Amino acid sequence: MTHLSRAWVLTAHPTGIPTVENWRLEDQTLPGPADGEILARSVYLSVDPYMRGRISAKANYAGGVAIGGIMHGGAVAEVLESNHPDWRPGDHVETMNFGWRDKAVLKGDGLTRVDPALAPLHAYLSYLGMPGRTAWLALQDIGQVKPGETVLISAASGAVGQVAGQIVKAKGGRAVAVASSEEKLAWCKQLGYDAGVNYRTAEDLGTAIGEACPDGIDVFFDNTAGPIHDAVMKRLNLGARVIICGTISLASKFDEPDMGERFLRQILVARARIQGFLIFDHVARYGEANSALAAMSEAGDLQFKTDVEERLEAMPSAFISLLTGDNFGKKVVRIGPDSES
Amino acid sequence: MTHLSRAWVLTAHPTGIPTVENWRLEDQTLPGPADGEILARSVYLSVDPYMRGRISAKANYAGGVAIGGIMHGGAVAEVLESNHPDWRPGDHVETMNFGWRDKAVLKGDGLTRVDPALAPLHAYLSYLGMPGRTAWLALQDIGQVKPGETVLISAASGAVGQVAGQIVKAKGGRAVAVASSEEKLAWCKQLGYDAGVNYRTAEDLGTAIGEACPDGIDVFFDNTAGPIHDAVMKRLNLGARVIICGTISLASKFDEPDMGERFLRQILVARARIQGFLIFDHVARYGEANSALAAMSEAGDLQFKTDVEERLEAMPSAFISLLTGDNFGKKVVRIGPDSES
Repeated sequence: MTHLSRAWVLTAHPTGIPTVENWRLEDQTLPGPADGEILARSVYLSVDPYMRGRISAKANYAGGVAIGGIMHGGAVAEVLESNHPDWRPGDHVETMNFGWRDKAVLKGDGLTRVDPALAPLHAYLSYLGMPGRTAWLALQDIGQVKPGETVLISAASGAVGQVAGQIVKAKGGRAVAVASSEEKLAWCKQLGYDAGVNYRTAEDLGTAIGEACPDGIDVFFDNTAGPIHDAVMKRLNLGARVIICGTISLASKFDEPDMGERFLRQILVARARIQGFLIFDHVARYGEANSALAAMSEAGDLQFKTDVEERLEAMPSAFISLLTGDNFGKKVVRIGPDSES
Repeated sequence: MTHLSRAWVLTAHPTGIPTVENWRLEDQTLPGPADGEILARSVYLSVDPYMRGRISAKANYAGGVAIGGIMHGGAVAEVLESNHPDWRPGDHVETMNFGWRDKAVLKGDGLTRVDPALAPLHAYLSYLGMPGRTAWLALQDIGQVKPGETVLISAASGAVGQVAGQIVKAKGGRAVAVASSEEKLAWCKQLGYDAGVNYRTAEDLGTAIGEACPDGIDVFFDNTAGPIHDAVMKRLNLGARVIICGTISLASKFDEPDMGERFLRQILVARARIQGFLIFDHVARYGEANSALAAMSEAGDLQFKTDVEERLEAMPSAFISLLTGDNFGKKVVRIGPDSES
C-alpha cells in the first residue's frame, strides 16, 4: 500500500539569502509503513535558522540537503498508521527529521511522544522542543550561569532567546536582551529580562550594550554573530563564556568569508571560553532537558510566543522571513488541523 | 641596612614593537630585608612574550607596569640574606615576580625552591618553570589530547612550544610544528614532532598546513595568532579545542584592532572550543605541573633548547628580538655567575 505526499525539494543551493525558487513542491509516493514504521501527517512544521546551514553548497553539518532531496526539518505530527508497538493512530509525535512535507513514513524508534493535554502542540517545536533544549543544554554545558552574573542574549525574543532569558532568570542571573524592535524588547521585559538594547535604533551599539551591562558580560548567548558579537566581545569579563549558537546575521553572506575585527587579545586577556553548540550532538540528553523545561512550564516560569503561518505552501517564504528578522517568537507553519477528532 | 640594585624601569608605553628607549636602567636603593623577607640576586632573568601585554597603554592584565615602575619579569635567583625560616643564603629560588634587575628584596612566602643538582638553573625558567607549566596545564585543561589526535603547535620551537610538542607525544598525539626556519623545524623533529611547516617559506600556508595535517586538526595550541591562526581555523575537526596562549604575531599592532577573517561559522560547524589561557591564574596548580614535568624530565622524555644572552644591559634588546622572532628556544639573560662558590 502506498500514500501520496506533497514535499518541498531543493532545486538549488542558494548563495546568500535564499529565494522561493530554491525549492519546488512536488507530489511523492510513500511506500509502507513497513514493519517498525509509522505513517504520520505533519500538524506543525518547524522553521529554524539552522536550516540555512543544511542548504549551503559548502560542506557544512552532516545532513546537508542534496539537490532534488526533501528539505530537512522537524515537525509535530499525528500518527495515521502504525506498524510499531509504541504508536497508535491518533498519537502525536515530535521529530527533528520529518522534512518539509505533509506526510511521511518514519521509523517508530527515536520519536518523542507529545502530550496534547500538557501544552499546545506547537510548544513541542518551541520551549518543549528543539529551541528549548538548545537554550537549556547550551546554558548548562557552556554558559554555567552563576547568580548575579550578567548574561547577554542576542535574538532575545526568538525561539531560543525567549527560553534562554527565562532560564537565566531562574538561575539568578541578570538577563540582557538584544533585539530588533521596541515591541520585541517590551515582550522580553515581560519575560523577565532586566534590560534591553534595540540594535536597529541604538546610536552606537557598543555604548548601548555597555550601558545595559554596567558590570560587563559574563555569559554571551550568541544567536546572531555580526555587529552584536563585535560589541559584546570587547566587554567580556574575566572568565567569560560565549555560546556560539547561531550566526543569523551572516545569512546573506553565508558562504563568503566573514571579515572584520577579531578578538584573540580579548579572549586571552579575559581567559574567555568560546564554544560552538549544536543541539543535534546531544540526543542522549533530550530527556534531561525536556524534564527541566516541563518543570519550569508547570511552575508557570515559562512564557512563550509563537509566530504561526498557515499551509505547506508557505514554507519557503516563512523560512526566508525568519532569516531577514521579520518573525517574532518561535516560527512554525501549521499544515493540518490540530486534531481531526 | 640598605642595598644597591640596578633596575630597568619603563619610560613609555610602546605602540607596536617596543624600542630600547622604552626602558631606562637606573640605580635603586633596597631596604631590608624585613622580617619574612629575603634579599636575592638574579642569576637568570626570564624573557617572555607575555611581557608585551604588561607594557600596553591599554587596560590589559592586572599587573600592568606603570611609567617609572620596575619592568615585570621572572627570575631564578640566589638568596644572599634571609629573614624567612625557609631560606638560607646560597639557596636558589624561582619567582615570576622578580623584575628586570640584579637584586631584589622579596617576600619569602610563595617562592619556588630550585634544585641546582636536578637541572641547570635556567631550566627553572623553561621546561621546569613558567613555559613548562603553561604547556602542561593548558594541554591538561583545554587541549585534552587523546591518542591519535592531531595537535598543531605554533611557535613550536619556542619556550612553550618545545615542551608542548613533547607532552603531546607522551600523550600519544600526533604533533605538528609551525615555525619560522628549517633549523627550528629540524630541532622540532628531534623533539619528536611528526611533521612541520615553515610559515615563512610555505608557498600557501593553508595548503602546507593541510598537507601536514591530512586528518584535520583536533587541538590547536596557538602561540601566535595571525595568518597561522587563520589557516588552522579552517581545518578544525569536529569537537576541536583551540588554546589561545599567545598572540606574538600581533606585537607590532598590539593596541590596534586586529582585522581579518572571523571564524564563527567554523566554530559552530566544528562545535569547537576556543579558550584563552594565562598561567598566572593557576598558581595553586604549579606543584601538579612541576611534578609531571620533573617526572618526564627524569624519564629522559624532555629535551629543551635555551637561548642565553649575557648581562642585565641586554634585557630590552633580548625582549625585542623575542617579539620579532629571532630567538630559538627559551630566551633568558644571564645576570650573575651560576654559582659564587
